[in-house]
Amino acid sequence: MPRFSRKETSIVQQEIELKDIMEVRVRFSEVDSLGIVWHGSFVKYLEDGRESFGRRYGLGYFDVYEQGWMTPLTHLEIDYKLQVKYGEEIVIETTFLQCDAAKIIFRYTIYRKPDLAVVATGSTTQVFVTKTGELELTNPPFYLEWKKKHGIG
Amino acid sequence: MPRFSRKETSIVQQEIELKDIMEVRVRFSEVDSLGIVWHGSFVKYLEDGRESFGRRYGLGYFDVYEQGWMTPLTHLEIDYKLQVKYGEEIVIETTFLQCDAAKIIFRYTIYRKPDLAVVATGSTTQVFVTKTGELELTNPPFYLEWKKKHGIG
Amino acid sequence: MPRFSRKETSIVQQEIELKDIMEVRVRFSEVDSLGIVWHGSFVKYLEDGRESFGRRYGLGYFDVYEQGWMTPLTHLEIDYKLQVKYGEEIVIETTFLQCDAAKIIFRYTIYRKPDLAVVATGSTTQVFVTKTGELELTNPPFYLEWKKKHGIG
Amino acid sequence: MPRFSRKETSIVQQEIELKDIMEVRVRFSEVDSLGIVWHGSFVKYLEDGRESFGRRYGLGYFDVYEQGWMTPLTHLEIDYKLQVKYGEEIVIETTFLQCDAAKIIFRYTIYRKPDLAVVATGSTTQVFVTKTGELELTNPPFYLEWKKKHGIG
Repeated sequence: MPRFSRKETSIVQQEIELKDIMEVRVRFSEVDSLGIVWHGSFVKYLEDGRESFGRRYGLGYFDVYEQGWMTPLTHLEIDYKLQVKYGEEIVIETTFLQCDAAKIIFRYTIYRKPDLAVVATGSTTQVFVTKTGELELTNPPFYLEWKKKHGIG
Repeated sequence: MPRFSRKETSIVQQEIELKDIMEVRVRFSEVDSLGIVWHGSFVKYLEDGRESFGRRYGLGYFDVYEQGWMTPLTHLEIDYKLQVKYGEEIVIETTFLQCDAAKIIFRYTIYRKPDLAVVATGSTTQVFVTKTGELELTNPPFYLEWKKKHGIG
Repeated sequence: MPRFSRKETSIVQQEIELKDIMEVRVRFSEVDSLGIVWHGSFVKYLEDGRESFGRRYGLGYFDVYEQGWMTPLTHLEIDYKLQVKYGEEIVIETTFLQCDAAKIIFRYTIYRKPDLAVVATGSTTQVFVTKTGELELTNPPFYLEWKKKHGIG
Repeated sequence: MPRFSRKETSIVQQEIELKDIMEVRVRFSEVDSLGIVWHGSFVKYLEDGRESFGRRYGLGYFDVYEQGWMTPLTHLEIDYKLQVKYGEEIVIETTFLQCDAAKIIFRYTIYRKPDLAVVATGSTTQVFVTKTGELELTNPPFYLEWKKKHGIG
C-alpha cells in the first residue's frame, strides 16, 4: 500500500477495501414452491460470504473466539433485485466497511454468475460480546491490531 | 371506521392497525453453536407471522395466488435486541403498514414470551408480480378491495 | 386398558407405550419447488415430535444434559408415503420403543390432519455420550430410573 | 480395473459403479448448539451429492423433469459415525446402485476431508412420478436408455 503524499493518503484511505469473492451453486433445498430461491436462503449466502472473508483475512469465527469474543449480529438487511432459480450459480462479494465504533460491518453484493447481474445487496452489523454475553462498547485490542495490519482505520 | 371530524379523521387514520399475534417455540435446529437462536432463523419467524396474518385476514399466499399474483420480497430488515435460547417461547406480532404504493409492508416485533421483552424487530416489503413474473406498479383491484374491506386507505 | 390375569399382565407389559402427539402446520419455507414439503423438512418434524415427547415425559434435551449426557443420533430413517402441501396441517405421533441397550429409540408416524392418512413413518436411534464426547455403552443410572418411573423395562 | 476373459466380464459388469465425489465445507448455520453438525444437515449433504451426480451423468432434476418425470424420495436412511465440527471440510461420495425396479437408489459415504475417516453413510430411494403426481411402476424409456448408455442393467 504505497503512500506518496499526505494528500494522496486520504484518497487512498477511502479506497482501501477488504473484499472477498466466492461462488455458490443454488441448492434444491434453497428453492421455494415458486421455483426461485427462497428469500431466507440469502441469509446463508451472506454468511457464506462472511465466513469466506473471515478465512481469507483471519477474522473468522474461531479467530475471534480464540481472542475471547463472539460477534452476534445486531442488524441484517437485504434488498432483492432479481430472482434466482435452482441450479444457477451466484457470486458473493463481501466488503468490509470501515467504521470507528466497536462494530463489524459488511456490505454484500450477490451476482448471477453468467452475466454478473446484481441479484441482491445486503449488509450486516455485528458487535463484540464477551463469552459470558456482555456487550463491549470499545474496540477490543485484537481487532484494532487486525485493522492496523490490514491498513484500516 | 366512524369518522367524526376532519381533525379526528387524521388521528384515526394513523391508529388503524391490522395485526396478528402468534406464538412459536424455538426448535433445537434453529439454535446455533453458541446455544442461541441463529440469526437466520428469524427470517422464518417473520414468515410465520406473515402467514398467520394472511390466514387471519385473507391475504395468505393462496388468497393472493388465486387472484393471479405472487408477492416476492424486495426488502427484508431485522434488528436483533436480545438473544433467545433453545426451548424458549416467543411471541410474533405482525402489523400491516398502510402504504399507497403497490406494495405490502409488514412490521414485526418478536417478544420473549414470559416477560414480553423485545427480542427483535423487523420489516418486509413485498411487491406484486404476475404469474409470468412481471412486476405490477399499480395496486391490483383485489388488493384495493381487500384494503377497503379492512378499512385501510 | 385394564387387564386382570397374570398371564395377560405380561401382554400388557409389552403394550405399554409412551407416546406424544402434536400438531404442526407446514411452513412456506419447508416446501420445495414442486409445491410439496421438501423431504428434508421431515427431519425437523421428527425433532419436533421428539422434543414434544421430551417435554411431556421429562426426557428433553435439558433434562438429559443436566444429568451429564448428550444423546446424538446414530441412525435416522424415514419412509415417505404421501406428499404434503403448503398450508396443510400434520399430526406427529412419537412413540418410545423399549430396548435394553444403552439407546433411545423412537418411532414416528406423521399423519395428514384432516383424514389422518399416513404421510410418513420414521425412526431414530440415539446413544449416550458424555459431555467430553465419550460413548457410554451401559444405561446411565438416571435413564434406568426414568424408565422405571414410566413402567418400562 | 482391466479384466480379460469372457467369464470375468460378467463379474466386471457387476462391479461397474457410477460414482460422484464432491467436497463441502460445513457452514456455521449447519452446526447445532453442541458445536457439531446438526444431524438434519446431512440430508442436504446427500442432496448435494445427488445433484452433483446428476450434473455429472445427466440425471439431474431438470434432465428428469424435461422427460416428464419427477423423482420424489420414498426412503431416506442415514447412519452417523463421527461428529463433524464447524469449519471442517467433508467429502461426499455418491454411488448409483443398480436395481431392476422403477427406482433410483443411491448410496452415500461422507468422509472427513483430511483423513478420510467415515463420518456417515446413507441411502435414498426415489420413484418416478408423472407431473400430475401418478406413480409409475415400470422404468420410463428415457431411464432405460440412460442406464444402457452408462453400461448399467
